[in-house]
Amino acid sequence: MLATVIHAARDIRVETVPDPVLSTGGDAIVRVVAACVCGSDLWPYRGITPTDQPHRIGHEFVGVVEAVGDDVESIEVGDFVIAPFYVCDGTCVNCRNGVSTSCLNGGWWGGDDRLGGFADGGQGERVRVPLADGTLVPVPVEVEPDMVPGLLTLSDVMGTGHHAAVSAGVQPGESVVVVGDGAVGLCAVIAAKRLGATTIIAMSRHADRQALARRFGATHVVAERGDEGVAAVRELTGGIGADRVLECVGTKESMDQAIRSARPGGMVGYVGVPNGGPELPVRPLFNRNVGVNGGVAPVRGYIEELLPDVLSGEIEPGLVFDLTLPLAEAAEAYAAMDERRAIKVMLQP
Amino acid sequence: MLATVIHAARDIRVETVPDPVLSTGGDAIVRVVAACVCGSDLWPYRGITPTDQPHRIGHEFVGVVEAVGDDVESIEVGDFVIAPFYVCDGTCVNCRNGVSTSCLNGGWWGGDDRLGGFADGGQGERVRVPLADGTLVPVPVEVEPDMVPGLLTLSDVMGTGHHAAVSAGVQPGESVVVVGDGAVGLCAVIAAKRLGATTIIAMSRHADRQALARRFGATHVVAERGDEGVAAVRELTGGIGADRVLECVGTKESMDQAIRSARPGGMVGYVGVPNGGPELPVRPLFNRNVGVNGGVAPVRGYIEELLPDVLSGEIEPGLVFDLTLPLAEAAEAYAAMDERRAIKVMLQP
Repeated sequence: MLATVIHAARDIRVETVPDPVLSTGGDAIVRVVAACVCGSDLWPYRGITPTDQPHRIGHEFVGVVEAVGDDVESIEVGDFVIAPFYVCDGTCVNCRNGVSTSCLNGGWWGGDDRLGGFADGGQGERVRVPLADGTLVPVPVEVEPDMVPGLLTLSDVMGTGHHAAVSAGVQPGESVVVVGDGAVGLCAVIAAKRLGATTIIAMSRHADRQALARRFGATHVVAERGDEGVAAVRELTGGIGADRVLECVGTKESMDQAIRSARPGGMVGYVGVPNGGPELPVRPLFNRNVGVNGGVAPVRGYIEELLPDVLSGEIEPGLVFDLTLPLAEAAEAYAAMDERRAIKVMLQP
Repeated sequence: MLATVIHAARDIRVETVPDPVLSTGGDAIVRVVAACVCGSDLWPYRGITPTDQPHRIGHEFVGVVEAVGDDVESIEVGDFVIAPFYVCDGTCVNCRNGVSTSCLNGGWWGGDDRLGGFADGGQGERVRVPLADGTLVPVPVEVEPDMVPGLLTLSDVMGTGHHAAVSAGVQPGESVVVVGDGAVGLCAVIAAKRLGATTIIAMSRHADRQALARRFGATHVVAERGDEGVAAVRELTGGIGADRVLECVGTKESMDQAIRSARPGGMVGYVGVPNGGPELPVRPLFNRNVGVNGGVAPVRGYIEELLPDVLSGEIEPGLVFDLTLPLAEAAEAYAAMDERRAIKVMLQP
């Protein structure tokens, strides 16, 4: 089969690799219907995360189950399934605590050798899914092609934006700033509105993303950054800053922007994979009682909650996909994301 | 009158200073019945915070109102009052949001020149209290001498320990680690028990403080620190770490201990004034979804909630005072705290 392999910075290739096979009894083989490129895939693409040797890449996909192991109970051949961006058993103490990204038996797509040779990434024709019962969520209705983008966002970006909002503790009637206008930031706008925020300030400098943020529920857009951005947010929030700030980028600059945009006693929910600044400034947090909560989003646990709203059209996260390419053009998908020519690219095998 | 003045590191003097006078209309003059030395007073005492010129020091006291300004409405001459470790109006947006330490019109004892010459500290015979209506809480019963220590803890340490627990989100049935066995850490044990935690692990290496922690509700004591301390906590918490960790010291080492003692998805509530390490390590937080919340504790807002339990004897935070000295011996009080000969010292003018 064909799958995407990263060889080095800016060297993405679609190559023939071995077909996946059932190996642990708890596996499923999923034929990928759609996959996508994640903002975090850009770290190795840009060389910020080094690539020591070629490896499979990609971790967001939906598809149809082609085979299941003897021990699989809740997934059947023919199911249309959503895969979160990691594997989890759904039963360990961390999964039960709602932190399935810390599953004691789980792992990550694309390079982990545990769980019977766990090399498949999402950007390929097929994927072997270990711990299928814990990992996959079947969609309970017939899936039409126009539903695929929305369902695909539940593999990562919609759940991750939701995690930012949940981690920040967004409550009805509150004010929320969203730092970052990538797919996750835009989904965080959806999540903030869905949880009842009434003032939603999207920080964005791109007209197309500003428009999408407004469509998703942003009540204000702030294009300024740094001191001017903080001043603009305070102007919109009674002079003190926002109740909640959702940090959806992961740089030192974006985290500083987020912390300074929160009011005293406010909370920053952060989901941007930290990059470019390993530490948080404690004094500005301490002096103003601004908390920081979040991390690698346990999206598996959010799929059942968010799926009905996606299926009903109540929320439309699938609109973050503004470019669709065949899998064979994965390299162009990365380039389009890297150069910000696309918010998010869907790949179709 | 007499009041405590710090001249330089380890140079604490009790000197004659001008009597305070009503000056803003909203003031009260309080005759101090008891004051105390705070762990944070030790930063200038030890020279970690430089003392550029002599200034008044102390910020925890209770006493009897001797005079009030014309605009004061809720405080009367003769009231026995508890003063929090800062001044606040109780009406601004930050006070209404529960963050009175960020009061838009407030300030700090001992050196702030706003609010009509705001120089009084708590460690003196009398204190001018600006914004008396917002700042002071009258005790609604006759105060007997044996009640004074417990009431005095509401000016800082009991409310601060409570803030650690509230910031960490302690819920009934949860596991809690308390890092720090000073007065605040011991009060955090009280707070964790009061909020329903069922596993309370006090990290302490001092037999007398261990004993007090157990009396206050600690179910376990861990004397180890670093890797061994983390291992001991995990052993007591099903292998994963505690639901909540209350950081009550403020050093880089104590914060690292706290972060590593939390389970995936757990929360660190921190109230130790940051010192010796200005930044928080974001990757260990992000990877395990450990949040950090807290700051300079808005204890004014907690006094009404905690006062009934102190008056009833349901909680006994006054036991943290293990040394009482006359005000004239303030220098010895600082030395005893600095050398850890005392957990907390009460000063009586």
